[in-house]
Amino acid sequence: MDKNIFLSELKSQTERAESVVMKYLPDPEEMFQHSVVEAMNYSVTVGGKRLRPLLMQETYRMFRGQDEIVEPFMAAIEMIHTYSLVHDDLPCMDNDTLRRGRETTWKKYGEAMAVLAGDGLLNYAFETAMKSFDLIEKEGALFEVSSETIASRYQSCAKALTVLAEKAGIRGMVGGQCLDVEAEEKDLSLSEEELLFIHEHKTAALIQACFMIGGVLAGAGKRQIERLEKIGYNVGVAFQIRDDMLDVIGDTETLGKNVGSDEKDGKKTYVTLHGLEQSEADEKHLTEEALELLEGLPGKHEFMEELILSLLGRRS
Amino acid sequence: MDKNIFLSELKSQTERAESVVMKYLPDPEEMFQHSVVEAMNYSVTVGGKRLRPLLMQETYRMFRGQDEIVEPFMAAIEMIHTYSLVHDDLPCMDNDTLRRGRETTWKKYGEAMAVLAGDGLLNYAFETAMKSFDLIEKEGALFEVSSETIASRYQSCAKALTVLAEKAGIRGMVGGQCLDVEAEEKDLSLSEEELLFIHEHKTAALIQACFMIGGVLAGAGKRQIERLEKIGYNVGVAFQIRDDMLDVIGDTETLGKNVGSDEKDGKKTYVTLHGLEQSEADEKHLTEEALELLEGLPGKHEFMEELILSLLGRRS
Repeated sequence: MDKNIFLSELKSQTERAESVVMKYLPDPEEMFQHSVVEAMNYSVTVGGKRLRPLLMQETYRMFRGQDEIVEPFMAAIEMIHTYSLVHDDLPCMDNDTLRRGRETTWKKYGEAMAVLAGDGLLNYAFETAMKSFDLIEKEGALFEVSSETIASRYQSCAKALTVLAEKAGIRGMVGGQCLDVEAEEKDLSLSEEELLFIHEHKTAALIQACFMIGGVLAGAGKRQIERLEKIGYNVGVAFQIRDDMLDVIGDTETLGKNVGSDEKDGKKTYVTLHGLEQSEADEKHLTEEALELLEGLPGKHEFMEELILSLLGRRS
Repeated sequence: MDKNIFLSELKSQTERAESVVMKYLPDPEEMFQHSVVEAMNYSVTVGGKRLRPLLMQETYRMFRGQDEIVEPFMAAIEMIHTYSLVHDDLPCMDNDTLRRGRETTWKKYGEAMAVLAGDGLLNYAFETAMKSFDLIEKEGALFEVSSETIASRYQSCAKALTVLAEKAGIRGMVGGQCLDVEAEEKDLSLSEEELLFIHEHKTAALIQACFMIGGVLAGAGKRQIERLEKIGYNVGVAFQIRDDMLDVIGDTETLGKNVGSDEKDGKKTYVTLHGLEQSEADEKHLTEEALELLEGLPGKHEFMEELILSLLGRRS
C-alpha cells in the first residue's frame, strides 16, 4: 500500500474511531455526580492514538462486518484502557503527574476522585458494551427477524463481552498489573519469564481483545479467533517492547510524558534485561510473525498490515 | 411467620447465599498474579450478612425462579459491594483500618494492591455474571431447546446484566460516592436533598439491583420490576439511615468497625441533619411502605417480609 494512501486512510479511520469513542462518553448533564463524569471524560478526551478501537474496527471490517454493533465495544475498550492509566498514575502506583502532555487525572481532580473516575470508567465500559444488546432489540423491533437470528446475535455479543471481561481482568490486564506492582514494592529482580508475563498481560491482553472481538462480532470461526488472539499477542508484546525502548531513546516532548522514569526508578524493563539491540530485533521479529499470521486470514488486509508495520519503530 | 422458624430459615438461606458467593470466587491457583486474587478473596471472605445475594435469591424464589442462573448474579453483586468497600477504605478516601473486625484490604496488602484488588473485583463481578451465558449454552447443548427459548433466556440475562451495570455505575453507586467524596473534600455543608442523593445512590442502588435482577431472571413483568425497584429503594435508604444511627448509638465490638467516625470527621449524616428520633421514624416509615408494596406482588413473601423487618432496628 502506498505510504500516502495509508496515511490518508489512517487519518480517516482514526477520526471515525475517535468519533465513536466520543459518541459513547457519558453526558455530564446537570446532575449531582457531574464531577466524576467530568473526570472520566477528561481522562478519555486527553487523546492518544485510539489504537485499540482502530484495531477492533479494522478487524471487524476485514471479516466483512458492516453493522453498528462493533461501536459500543470500540468505545468500551478505550474506556478500559483509559481507566487502567488513571489508576496506574495514582501516587500509590506509579505516581505520575504528566500524561500525553497534560496533567494526570489525580493531579487535576485529586486522588479520591481519580480512584472513582477509574472505577466509573471500568463500570461504564461494561455498560457501554452492553448497549450492543439494545442494538439487537432495536433491529428486532424494526425488521422481521427470526428467533434463530436473534439468538445468534445475542450469542455473538455475549461472547464478545466475555472476551472483553476476561482480557481486562485477573487473567488479563489486572493480572499483569499485579505482578508489576509486586515487583516494584518488593524490589524483586524480575526474571525474563516474569517480565514477559507482565507485558503479555498488562499490555497484550487488551490488544488481543481488540482483534478477537472484531472477529467474534463479524462471525469469524473458532480457528480464526485463535489466530487473531495470536496476532494480538505479537502486536501487543512488540508494542510494549517499543514503549520500554522509548523510555530510553524517546524525548519528553514527542511522548507527552516523562521519559527516563523507568531507569530512574530502577525498574526492570525489556531494555534493561535484553539491551536495546535485542529489544529492537525482538520487536521486529514479533511484528513479522504477526504479518505472516495475518496472511492466512480471509478478506483484504493491506491496511491492517500497514497499521501493524507503522507501530514498528514508532517514535511516540 | 414464627420468629424461630424465620431465624432457622434465615440461617439456611444465608448459608446457601454464602456457599454461592464462595463457589464463584476466583481460584488463586499457582499463578504469577495470585497476590491480587488473594487480596480480592480476603476482602470477600471477611464476611458480612450477605444481605444483597440473600435479597436477590429470595426475590428470584418469590417469582418461582428455579434455575442456577441467579447464582452468578448473586456472587457478582457481592463482589461489587465488596470492591466499593475496598476502595472506600483507602487512605485517600475514608482512610479506614478496620472492617468487620479485621484489617481493611489496604492495611493488610498495601494501597497499590488494594486499588488493584478493587479493580479486579469489579471486573470479576462482570465476568462472573456473564457465566450465566454459559449456563444457557450448557442447557441448550443438553436438552432440545427452541430458538425462541434461547433468545428469551439471553434477553433476560442481558437485561439483568444491564441493571447490574447501571445500578453500580455513575447513575447508581459510583454517582453517590462522587458526591460523598466531594462533600468531604470541599467541606460542603450538605443539603437534605444532597444527602438523600448520596444514600439513594451509594447504598440503595445496589439493593434495588438485587430485587430487580431477582425479578428479571424469574420472568417478572415490567410493572413488577418497577415495584421491585421501589421496594429496593425503601429498603436501601432505610438501611443507610440505620447505618448512620449505628455510627452514633452502636459499639465498635458489635459492629466490627470504628464508630463515631462520622461525627469525628464532622461528616454530615442523616442523624446530624434530622436527629435520632426523626431518623428512627423515617427508617420505620420507609420499611412499612416497602412491606405494603411487597403485598401487591405474587408468590409467597412471608420470609421476605420478615427479612426486611429484621433490618429495622438492627444493632449491627
